[in-house]
Amino acid sequence: MADLLWPGDERAGEVFTDAALLHGLVAVEQAWLDVLVDRGIAPSAARRDLTSLVTSADVTLVASRAESSGNPLVPLLTLLRERGGRPVADPGRWLHRGLTSQDVVDTALVLGARAATRELLGSLDRQVSALATLAERHRDDLMAGRTLTQHAVPLTFGLKAAQWLRGVLDARDALRGLRFPVQVGGAAGTLAAVAEIAGGPDAALATVADVARSLGLEPSPPWHTVRTPFTAYADALVRTTDALGHVANDVLVLARPEVGELAEPAVAGRGGSSTMPQKANPVLSVLVRRAALAAPALGAQLHLAAAEAVDERPDGGWHTEWATLATLSRRTLVAASQAAELLEGLHVDTGAMSALVAQRSSALLAERRSMRELTAPPVGSTRPRPEDDFDPAHYLGATASIIDGVLARAREEN
Amino acid sequence: MADLLWPGDERAGEVFTDAALLHGLVAVEQAWLDVLVDRGIAPSAARRDLTSLVTSADVTLVASRAESSGNPLVPLLTLLRERGGRPVADPGRWLHRGLTSQDVVDTALVLGARAATRELLGSLDRQVSALATLAERHRDDLMAGRTLTQHAVPLTFGLKAAQWLRGVLDARDALRGLRFPVQVGGAAGTLAAVAEIAGGPDAALATVADVARSLGLEPSPPWHTVRTPFTAYADALVRTTDALGHVANDVLVLARPEVGELAEPAVAGRGGSSTMPQKANPVLSVLVRRAALAAPALGAQLHLAAAEAVDERPDGGWHTEWATLATLSRRTLVAASQAAELLEGLHVDTGAMSALVAQRSSALLAERRSMRELTAPPVGSTRPRPEDDFDPAHYLGATASIIDGVLARAREEN
Amino acid sequence: MADLLWPGDERAGEVFTDAALLHGLVAVEQAWLDVLVDRGIAPSAARRDLTSLVTSADVTLVASRAESSGNPLVPLLTLLRERGGRPVADPGRWLHRGLTSQDVVDTALVLGARAATRELLGSLDRQVSALATLAERHRDDLMAGRTLTQHAVPLTFGLKAAQWLRGVLDARDALRGLRFPVQVGGAAGTLAAVAEIAGGPDAALATVADVARSLGLEPSPPWHTVRTPFTAYADALVRTTDALGHVANDVLVLARPEVGELAEPAVAGRGGSSTMPQKANPVLSVLVRRAALAAPALGAQLHLAAAEAVDERPDGGWHTEWATLATLSRRTLVAASQAAELLEGLHVDTGAMSALVAQRSSALLAERRSMRELTAPPVGSTRPRPEDDFDPAHYLGATASIIDGVLARAREEN
Amino acid sequence: MADLLWPGDERAGEVFTDAALLHGLVAVEQAWLDVLVDRGIAPSAARRDLTSLVTSADVTLVASRAESSGNPLVPLLTLLRERGGRPVADPGRWLHRGLTSQDVVDTALVLGARAATRELLGSLDRQVSALATLAERHRDDLMAGRTLTQHAVPLTFGLKAAQWLRGVLDARDALRGLRFPVQVGGAAGTLAAVAEIAGGPDAALATVADVARSLGLEPSPPWHTVRTPFTAYADALVRTTDALGHVANDVLVLARPEVGELAEPAVAGRGGSSTMPQKANPVLSVLVRRAALAAPALGAQLHLAAAEAVDERPDGGWHTEWATLATLSRRTLVAASQAAELLEGLHVDTGAMSALVAQRSSALLAERRSMRELTAPPVGSTRPRPEDDFDPAHYLGATASIIDGVLARAREEN
Repeated sequence: MADLLWPGDERAGEVFTDAALLHGLVAVEQAWLDVLVDRGIAPSAARRDLTSLVTSADVTLVASRAESSGNPLVPLLTLLRERGGRPVADPGRWLHRGLTSQDVVDTALVLGARAATRELLGSLDRQVSALATLAERHRDDLMAGRTLTQHAVPLTFGLKAAQWLRGVLDARDALRGLRFPVQVGGAAGTLAAVAEIAGGPDAALATVADVARSLGLEPSPPWHTVRTPFTAYADALVRTTDALGHVANDVLVLARPEVGELAEPAVAGRGGSSTMPQKANPVLSVLVRRAALAAPALGAQLHLAAAEAVDERPDGGWHTEWATLATLSRRTLVAASQAAELLEGLHVDTGAMSALVAQRSSALLAERRSMRELTAPPVGSTRPRPEDDFDPAHYLGATASIIDGVLARAREEN
Repeated sequence: MADLLWPGDERAGEVFTDAALLHGLVAVEQAWLDVLVDRGIAPSAARRDLTSLVTSADVTLVASRAESSGNPLVPLLTLLRERGGRPVADPGRWLHRGLTSQDVVDTALVLGARAATRELLGSLDRQVSALATLAERHRDDLMAGRTLTQHAVPLTFGLKAAQWLRGVLDARDALRGLRFPVQVGGAAGTLAAVAEIAGGPDAALATVADVARSLGLEPSPPWHTVRTPFTAYADALVRTTDALGHVANDVLVLARPEVGELAEPAVAGRGGSSTMPQKANPVLSVLVRRAALAAPALGAQLHLAAAEAVDERPDGGWHTEWATLATLSRRTLVAASQAAELLEGLHVDTGAMSALVAQRSSALLAERRSMRELTAPPVGSTRPRPEDDFDPAHYLGATASIIDGVLARAREEN
Repeated sequence: MADLLWPGDERAGEVFTDAALLHGLVAVEQAWLDVLVDRGIAPSAARRDLTSLVTSADVTLVASRAESSGNPLVPLLTLLRERGGRPVADPGRWLHRGLTSQDVVDTALVLGARAATRELLGSLDRQVSALATLAERHRDDLMAGRTLTQHAVPLTFGLKAAQWLRGVLDARDALRGLRFPVQVGGAAGTLAAVAEIAGGPDAALATVADVARSLGLEPSPPWHTVRTPFTAYADALVRTTDALGHVANDVLVLARPEVGELAEPAVAGRGGSSTMPQKANPVLSVLVRRAALAAPALGAQLHLAAAEAVDERPDGGWHTEWATLATLSRRTLVAASQAAELLEGLHVDTGAMSALVAQRSSALLAERRSMRELTAPPVGSTRPRPEDDFDPAHYLGATASIIDGVLARAREEN
Repeated sequence: MADLLWPGDERAGEVFTDAALLHGLVAVEQAWLDVLVDRGIAPSAARRDLTSLVTSADVTLVASRAESSGNPLVPLLTLLRERGGRPVADPGRWLHRGLTSQDVVDTALVLGARAATRELLGSLDRQVSALATLAERHRDDLMAGRTLTQHAVPLTFGLKAAQWLRGVLDARDALRGLRFPVQVGGAAGTLAAVAEIAGGPDAALATVADVARSLGLEPSPPWHTVRTPFTAYADALVRTTDALGHVANDVLVLARPEVGELAEPAVAGRGGSSTMPQKANPVLSVLVRRAALAAPALGAQLHLAAAEAVDERPDGGWHTEWATLATLSRRTLVAASQAAELLEGLHVDTGAMSALVAQRSSALLAERRSMRELTAPPVGSTRPRPEDDFDPAHYLGATASIIDGVLARAREEN
């Protein structure tokens, strides 16, 4: 999988591809059928290996037949029945028995979200490690602070790295806190059909729990119209791209040739221009920033879908979720992988940083000078003016403590 | 406070009004000055009651002078110095000493967010209570299920209420989990100035902790460019309007005259038309739905601001947050209050519900019939067809269990 | 092409697929190379058929190499050079000479936008025709008006169709007014390289004009950082989905079983449920509504990209445009095709409409009654009360004139 | 009017304030009543000066009573009747006769949009003039081109100014093309009530035309559910902030201290920091950028409202439009005024620009060098290498022609 219009897309691997979703749909039907047999609801003769009936090559076929029912599950069922022979195609068939198409589509999307989350956490762990190293290594390396694009008082690059790290830790917390519930409710979310075939409400709930366990998901009452699992997931992903956008923006400013304090890792052939051989564009940062600019609207789309819930299955809001989840997931995965690589190889020019601090020390001293006036000894005393005792350490303030706090959090949460 | 273009705005009271923000800014400066004196950093003579120096009537004055510095804090400081006399206006003044304007603006916004959250939780508690009652009372009241606008199998209205309740509980969880950190960092977020006047990093952190305690906020390292406190807040608010939009949409469908299963509480004079005396418009639902349609974009705006973080203070992203937070907060408060009133007085016409179920029983039986075929006894046996033993209880499925689960969660979390 | 997660996607055909974009990129390079040779800038020996060098099968290869340069053009050039042999691969090569990658990517996107617009206009013409027929046919068919979900005074279904038609005409106007400019500027948008090889500024502009003509586009100065061509295009597409969303929402309400005034065209197998055989879901309307809910955020994304323009090529904003344009284009095409089919086969139950008007005549008379009071003769006169001379024609008001006006506009603009 | 949370808001004056809207609502009712009397539909005794009955001080009263009906018009009518005495309060009253509340609210919003557009065009004319001067004055002043943040080939600052100008011209075109239609349709948009009192459809349309003329608006059939007037307006405003964001972003980069090629106009007291006396923040650019980041989502909100049209008056979508229009309008006005001031006083350091070009000439020559290789004479000839005949004019390419084209467009359109 790669996307001509979203360079780097291949970093997301197979997560949330059409093929992965198709396999997810089949996996849910398989788990359901297996549990029906295992629990004795369906006869042993109903057992069937569905996963071998469908391959990635069927994506186009299923997709092109999805409009009639408004979702891809119905044509997939037709395909499974065509290919499955008895008992799948039996008039008294057990395939999908008790489920509604939203059950299967939603659960497959949850499987995709879980897979994406696992991958994401891997990239975030790499980022945390790289950022902790940067924060530690550069804890005393002064650089010019910048506010509203203009020079402010100095900070250390270690502090900047620690602030980047906090954003990533916040995102990781959100991702770690996600829950991945199974969706089984039947036509109107009542579990009536399941109860009918399983022999009552308790058996219905136990059946759902078995399926959840089989898929590695949480048991859950149906949530057809309560879309928190998807909005919480989207919020966590957008929180991730927020954190990474912050990093990318800083790199893009500090890697400008007039600043030259940071540089992306040098990789042969990367960052080249189609016409200017000397260019070394900060491609990773550009592409990470791209994702950060686009993610909030995708997250909002999922909230809008949640807010449009109506009846027992919404009339359009639900249908906007699927592609939005896939797009947001893949883009976030790509950005997280790119950011990990960026941070692991980030070139920090502490010489350029300190040279600027020295050059601008008078201006950068301004805040400190006004602090010193406050606590100045009486006129006539011999206490030196700030310029006279210029000591970079004065600018460190509580940066070491702030860095230590963030590093401690990173360690604790590992 | 009331807004001609957002009917119902007055329900939000003073939360996040311009005046409230102005008082918040003063409260932060006051707390800071008090702590400086209390800790012996500033002399006792620096103590001053700032809150009496500014009133709501100053909003326009401060606002109209805010452009020069790009934020309202600088003109407020000027005003405080003009009015404060010595020592506030002293050249060696202690007012705002060690802070940067973002410290004060952000902390005042956090105070607003905390106030909004408290109010919101009050409305959500009312909703939880009303919804629990509805879910319990109507646990056995059958109504037609509807998916993609068409009739599906029946559910109970109690189940629908329980699903509404889950959305509200999810929102309440998110709101309860919010954290409200103080923002103190100084010009570049290093606490250098605070350390300078307080006597070192540890004293700086202790000073920050004292201010946080004084304001009832959490101590925190500076988060000038790590905007999670605001994005998490926005996500929780949007989750709230998502849940309420779901309720409103259902009421709007079910209160249509052709359906007539629900009605808004009757209030004299409400829902009237300017020309059609017979109209009783579901005004609360319309206005709640309005908020749900508008909130996701506001949440996304805060994520975009977070994603645009750069340098030690962003060049525009930060500035988009203030009004967005205020607008989102007030609108969510209004919607939550309206929804509480709506749910507490919701009229449920169980007669209309059951009449429709009876009238459409054949069609509504479809799912059940196909389940029965599966488990049918051998041909020739005497087991009745589903139509022959129509019993509404068969449609209840596991609805009672689902309702009980949600009610248990509501109780536990109270 | 079909998309598992966006049912109906195949209706968009090849427009804005990855393969179409790849061919577009090649077409732009081809046109440029041809013009260089035709104008004698490059030697005849440089002429080369590029289009045969690349097939749709190369999409994945090119896409997977696009990250290094941040766009797909650079790896495509590499591929063309690998496969082209001399003179394409000649050190003094003419391929892409004078262009920058943004020139080619943008122009290929414009080609995609033009193709999408043509297809869209075809669907809109079908809609216009169907809607004009509905407006004409039902000009006197009364139905209940509904405001804020409740019954208001009657209108005619012809008027409703005419209002739908106006939205479509507005969208068609916007689409027809679009301009499709070529993008040629070179590395910093100065045309310096083109002027160098072509022999001066006038020759450079003439060269650009030739390329534009060859591709069927408008000549244009470079617009690397002035993104109006794409935002205007996006606005027109969103205006289209706005108009179609309006139609879909009305159908979804009026096709509810309790209302039953409209129905989607019956197509064997469409609208079926995975478990409930009796269901006939209004699938086209649901899917059109889906597009209308999702389009505004995509349009906003293109505006954000425009607003993020900086330097001579933006650092991320530009990169968000490509996939957004493709997604918005395909979804709008799908919705427009679905809406055309929906409108051409829409079932209008005028009996149900008139029955409701008769049943609710007293309430529906309310506005009229209050008008009559105003113009009532003196007490004691014999003029009848409105109820006494109930005549549906009284409700038609100026509906015929409004309909005629819209129909006239539709005819004029054809 | 000033807004504590949107510094600079006072630049928008009274446009789209709550008070302006209130006066707009009254103005519409006044125009309607006058026309009814003028046309002899209402008796002369019904004539009444409504505008004197309500003042800005009534905003809060009307706003706080707006929830009951869901819009501010109904309580305003009550107020007018309370204060108007006979004949306004007459049982057979003529006030508002024939209208529905949406007619009045929408028309008042259109009046606001027209006022905002006029103001905006004034600011844009100033920008056009300033930009034309910059483009002309700096047509030969070389500066480093920058793509993806890195140095590319040079351009002239005149070209950059010309590109800014194109964006502004595009926005001005969109604003100039806007139409401002009156909204009169009655309860269901049929003009039935107007026809009833006016004496038939033709008289109804003539009445509407008179009211439109009286308010300076276009006559129009009702557009209650066809929201193009507002989406087109929003699109034009967002196009404006897109253009201004582009300018602001460039200024923010080029005014960074490490670059120093541009500076905001110096105004005493502007750009100051609360703690760092040396700071001169580019406040105007920051605040303009703020607006550009926030506008796209507001535009999308209006499209979403349009896409949510349903029935004869929507159940929430309509209600989101009012505040969104006001916010978007005021913010755009503020940004346009700030940008005009910024551009009129922009400080251009051509020395810094040319110094950088000279310093980086080798790298900046790269594109040119590769062009020269193409057209190089045979090996052994004496043609100089590009470095040997460095002549800035070579970099100008077709920039003069591009600039001239934009300037000609600006002149023609004036």
